[in-house]
Amino acid sequence: MTATPYLAVDATVLDANIAAMASSAAARGLSLRPHAKTHKCLEIARRQLSAGAVGLTVATVGEAEIFAEVCQDIFIAYPLWADDAKGARLRALVDAGVRVTVGVDSAVGAAQLAVAAGAIDVLVEVDSGHHRSGCPAADAGAVAAAATEAGLTVRGAFTFPGHGYTPGAAEGVAEQEELALAVARDRLAARGLSFAVLSGGSTPTAPVAHGGVLSELRPGVYVFNDAQQLHLGTCSATDLALWAVGTVVSAPTGGRIVLDTGSKVLGADRPSWLETFGFLPDYPGAVVVQLSEHHAVVELPPTVAAPAHGDRVRVVPNHVCNTVNLADEFVIEAAGRPTGRWLIAARGANR
Amino acid sequence: MTATPYLAVDATVLDANIAAMASSAAARGLSLRPHAKTHKCLEIARRQLSAGAVGLTVATVGEAEIFAEVCQDIFIAYPLWADDAKGARLRALVDAGVRVTVGVDSAVGAAQLAVAAGAIDVLVEVDSGHHRSGCPAADAGAVAAAATEAGLTVRGAFTFPGHGYTPGAAEGVAEQEELALAVARDRLAARGLSFAVLSGGSTPTAPVAHGGVLSELRPGVYVFNDAQQLHLGTCSATDLALWAVGTVVSAPTGGRIVLDTGSKVLGADRPSWLETFGFLPDYPGAVVVQLSEHHAVVELPPTVAAPAHGDRVRVVPNHVCNTVNLADEFVIEAAGRPTGRWLIAARGANR
Repeated sequence: MTATPYLAVDATVLDANIAAMASSAAARGLSLRPHAKTHKCLEIARRQLSAGAVGLTVATVGEAEIFAEVCQDIFIAYPLWADDAKGARLRALVDAGVRVTVGVDSAVGAAQLAVAAGAIDVLVEVDSGHHRSGCPAADAGAVAAAATEAGLTVRGAFTFPGHGYTPGAAEGVAEQEELALAVARDRLAARGLSFAVLSGGSTPTAPVAHGGVLSELRPGVYVFNDAQQLHLGTCSATDLALWAVGTVVSAPTGGRIVLDTGSKVLGADRPSWLETFGFLPDYPGAVVVQLSEHHAVVELPPTVAAPAHGDRVRVVPNHVCNTVNLADEFVIEAAGRPTGRWLIAARGANR
Repeated sequence: MTATPYLAVDATVLDANIAAMASSAAARGLSLRPHAKTHKCLEIARRQLSAGAVGLTVATVGEAEIFAEVCQDIFIAYPLWADDAKGARLRALVDAGVRVTVGVDSAVGAAQLAVAAGAIDVLVEVDSGHHRSGCPAADAGAVAAAATEAGLTVRGAFTFPGHGYTPGAAEGVAEQEELALAVARDRLAARGLSFAVLSGGSTPTAPVAHGGVLSELRPGVYVFNDAQQLHLGTCSATDLALWAVGTVVSAPTGGRIVLDTGSKVLGADRPSWLETFGFLPDYPGAVVVQLSEHHAVVELPPTVAAPAHGDRVRVVPNHVCNTVNLADEFVIEAAGRPTGRWLIAARGANR
């Protein structure tokens, strides 16, 4: 048996999640460009592309370099600051025949990208209310014009509606997303620039995006789902395709057990509206009340028979993207039995 | 220049931290057995041992296997559940001449360890108030007797006073730690068992541990310190030896910048009493208000001139142990210039 803690993936559920998002996007006439930062795995990228994805989204040049092995159309959905070295790496990908598109959200960032990487395709990032990166939608035309002036090719705009990761927020946020992209589209059109691509998120908002403005969806988490998505109502427990397998190492008091699935395996994410550091599918009322590097302290409901010392227990992480980045491989399981291992090729490829 | 984001270590500050803890422990007649899970780096372990550490502490069998290259006296401060495979790995270390000591906090865990690993040294883990693993101190005698009965060699007891990671808590928690170890000592003594080792934590409590009961300290974080220790008052800003180097990639509004040092580089830790996801040594009033995988959104005080797009900015993580586990190497810097690279050999060795 594989030593605990490790990450297990149910490939049947994974394939069903991939197929469901593909058909949901296709039914609305939307392109699907899944975010590969979630899985960082070539095998899973291949399955997404086979299911009809038009290309991949990544967050870093390092991820683009790795996924170029299986995909020739990659969008780096990030306002890169392209210094000489990153510019040269981007140029090398383009010269190797990969269609690389990069995010820009400022005139100065666009100018730097053009200097360092030469002519390259870009999408203008606009802020649809998450208030992270992205220029105001009303500034999309100015940023795009600066990019064009610098020698870049503007293909449209994108946004990340990350404020949809809050209970009850998805529908309203999806409307904000459409609105911001509509404003960006109009600003690009007014300058005679292309708006062929109008790209949005995200696992919580993708199912409720109308598609009236958007042309493309970039969800990532949906391949596995996670405890956060379960609590948001984006998925049900049967859609969970990844969990950490841990062992009960300590049970100092009744109703409280300690698993070896700590934050170095699960990641330390916990949104303010969630009281637990993970979801235990076999003990759905359990709460991970304390998480340290190698200890997950779990409180069980009083009516539940606790697992014994040495028992293996599954824990679904809160935020699967950070969980995956901590591991080197997935153990693929079918009906609880291992059937193979997949390398997490882009683990740590975060620059 | 190294691509951002990356982890930089100031070796001068690191060496000063190592020397200060070594002399502080020696002045109180305490053994120092630093926790290597913080740095996961053979070069840093060598420096700790050269400065007088009696051995190393680790959290997993995987870390023990890696640090055995530089240390022949390793304590796994964790109540391992030793299945056949982990037992065999422990046995292989012992057979290779490494003095391995393992934590136990239950009779059933001790029995399993003896079956899987054979005769091996143990310390009984007791709970001094953190309420994670560890038996009640009053039960230390019973657990130790069970371990002895199973064929293990009891050398004493240990505790981790993790509830000392709260503002103002360290002195009171250090007293609880001494009290719990005193109870454990008396219970071991009453059964005629060894209490030669009475081992305690931790970076916040180590400086205030009296040493009346404790024989050994196991701090980890002190080699680097981090934003959490700074806010706890355990260290000052000049004692910070590690930071992530990031680049300003976006500045959508005045007073707010976005760095590429996201949670896949810093880790997502944020204790409830801390409002920021990191400390910016060059902008001490800045707050990292939002952290996602590749974005650290920073709010600057209105009186501070913001760094420009493309500028490099240092961010000290909240919890350095989880930060280090995300990286493959440290860039060693002296006066801001790179002088070398050290491998994080035990990155991911968490089982």
